[in-house]
Amino acid sequence: MAHGPALLTAAVGGDRRALARLLTGIENEDPHVRELLPQIFAASRGAHLVGITGPPGAGKSTLVTALTREYRKRGRRVGIVAVDPSSPYTGGAIMGDRIRMMEHAADRNIFMRSMASRGELGGIAAATWLVAAALDAAGYDPVLVETVGAGQAELEVARLAETTVVVEVPEMGDEIQAIKAGLLEVADVVTVNKADRPGAERSAGQLRAMLAGAGGRFAAPPPILLTIATTGEGVAPLVDAIEADRTRARSPDQARVRARNQLLRAVIERSRRRAEGRVEWDSTVNEIAEHRIDPITAADRLLDT
Amino acid sequence: MAHGPALLTAAVGGDRRALARLLTGIENEDPHVRELLPQIFAASRGAHLVGITGPPGAGKSTLVTALTREYRKRGRRVGIVAVDPSSPYTGGAIMGDRIRMMEHAADRNIFMRSMASRGELGGIAAATWLVAAALDAAGYDPVLVETVGAGQAELEVARLAETTVVVEVPEMGDEIQAIKAGLLEVADVVTVNKADRPGAERSAGQLRAMLAGAGGRFAAPPPILLTIATTGEGVAPLVDAIEADRTRARSPDQARVRARNQLLRAVIERSRRRAEGRVEWDSTVNEIAEHRIDPITAADRLLDT
Repeated sequence: MAHGPALLTAAVGGDRRALARLLTGIENEDPHVRELLPQIFAASRGAHLVGITGPPGAGKSTLVTALTREYRKRGRRVGIVAVDPSSPYTGGAIMGDRIRMMEHAADRNIFMRSMASRGELGGIAAATWLVAAALDAAGYDPVLVETVGAGQAELEVARLAETTVVVEVPEMGDEIQAIKAGLLEVADVVTVNKADRPGAERSAGQLRAMLAGAGGRFAAPPPILLTIATTGEGVAPLVDAIEADRTRARSPDQARVRARNQLLRAVIERSRRRAEGRVEWDSTVNEIAEHRIDPITAADRLLDT
Repeated sequence: MAHGPALLTAAVGGDRRALARLLTGIENEDPHVRELLPQIFAASRGAHLVGITGPPGAGKSTLVTALTREYRKRGRRVGIVAVDPSSPYTGGAIMGDRIRMMEHAADRNIFMRSMASRGELGGIAAATWLVAAALDAAGYDPVLVETVGAGQAELEVARLAETTVVVEVPEMGDEIQAIKAGLLEVADVVTVNKADRPGAERSAGQLRAMLAGAGGRFAAPPPILLTIATTGEGVAPLVDAIEADRTRARSPDQARVRARNQLLRAVIERSRRRAEGRVEWDSTVNEIAEHRIDPITAADRLLDT
C-alpha cells in the first residue's frame, strides 16, 4: 500500500482503500498525512459541501440516504461524512450498520465515512472539514455531512458547510422547540421531515413565522420544504433547493465567513495541543487543583511564557 | 454602587444587587471584573458544584426546582446557574419565566442566574465555572448548574462539575438513546425522572445493564434513582446520593481532573481571543478563502509568529 504523496495520488485516482486509509490518517492526525494537507487542499475540486443537521429523531439518516439516491439519479458521485457521537456504550454501532448497508450496495460512486465526535472542543469540526476536503479531492460532489444530535458540535460542523439543511419534524416539545430555534440560525434550507404526520403544514407555517420574525438576519428567508424521507416524497425538490443555494454559498463574502470559521477551529485545536505539550502543564494543573491560581490567569501565564 | 474590590466585598457580604452585577461583569468579560478573578477564586468557600444534565424533555428545570426545595429544607443556601441555549428566536424566554417565579418567592437563600450559551467554543464552560465560583464565594452551597440540551457544550459544563447528575426519562427513541449513552459517560448519579410513566423501572434496569457493561470505567457504577420532580417523590434520596458523592469528588485525583479541564477551557478561550486580535488575522482568512493555504497550516503559522 502506498505512503505519503503516493497514497494521496492513489486516493484521488479512485483507489477506495487508499482513500479510506487517507481519511483514517486525517482522523488520527498521522504526521505523514499531516504533511499532505496542503496538497489535499490544493487538489480540492470545489465540491458542494452540504451539512445536514436537526434535532434527534428528525430522521436525518434516512433523509441522507434519500438525498444520496436522488443525487445518484442525477449522475452525481456522493461523499457522506456521518459525525457520530460515539461512546463506550454505543461504540458507533448506529453508523456501523449503515456503512455495511451502503457497502453492500457496492456503488463505487458513493463513499461514506463515519467519524467519532468524542474529540475535544473544535477537533471534530476541524477533522470533519478535512475529511470532506479529501472526499472532494477524490471527486465526490456533493459531500453531505450529517450530524447526530443538536448540540454545539453540530452547530460548529454546520458553520463549516456551504449549504446547511436543517431537518425539523412536526410537533415536538418546548425544549426541543428551543433547540430547533438554535439550529434555524444556521439554516440555508429547512425541511419539515416526516411530513405524513399530523401537524406538518402547521409546523412549516410556524417556522415561516419564526424566520420572518428574525427580520434582517437573512437577505431572504431560507425556503421551507416538506419531505417524507422513508418514501422519498419531496426529496427531489429538496435537492433542487440545495442546488439553488450553491450560488449564494459561493460568493466571496460567504467564502470569507467560512474561511474565518475554519481558521478559528484550527487555531483552537492547535493551541490546545501546544498548551498540553508544555513542560509547565502538569504543575499549572496542580496549582489550580490546590486553589493557588485561577484558571484564566493560569492560561494567560501559560500562553505568555 | 461599588466598583472593583468593593463590589466583590459587597457581593460576598450578601448584597444581591452587587452579586448580580459581579456575575454580569463575568459574563461580559468586563476588564474591571477580570482583575477580580484571583480574589473571587481565593474567596471560594468550597461549595459543592453539582451539574444537572440530560436530554431535552427530561424535566431538568422542574427537578432543579424540586432539588432546591429539598436543599432549603436542609438549611442550605442554593445557587443555581441555568445555561440557556438562547437565540434571537427564543431570547432565553424559558429561563426568564423561571427567574421571575424564583424572585417572587423572595427567598434570599436562593440565587438564580441564567446564562446564554450562544458563546464560542469553550467560552460558556469557562464563564459558567467562574459564575459558580462567585456564587460559592457569596456563600451559596450547593451551586446547581443546569444545562438545557444534550450537546457538547453540556458535556463540557458537566466535566467542570464535581458531581454530575444525569436526568433520564423512560422510553425514548433510538437517537435519544445514543445521546443518553453519551451523557452517561459523565454521570456520577443517574435519575430516571417522570418515573410515574410506564416503563420507568425497565429503563432503570436497562441503564444498570449499560453501566455494568462499561466495565472498568467506574470504580463503582453510579447509583440509579427514580424521581417524579413534579410531586417531589424520590427527590430526598436523590439529594442523599448527591451528598454521598461529594467525598469521591473531593479526592486529589478528581480535583486534578477538574483543574485540567478548567485550564484547557481557559487556554482555548484565551488563544481564540489572541489569534483574532492579531494583525495578520484578516489576511490569513483571505488566503484560506482563496484556497492559497489550508486552515491548519495557516493556524500554525499564526501561532508561530
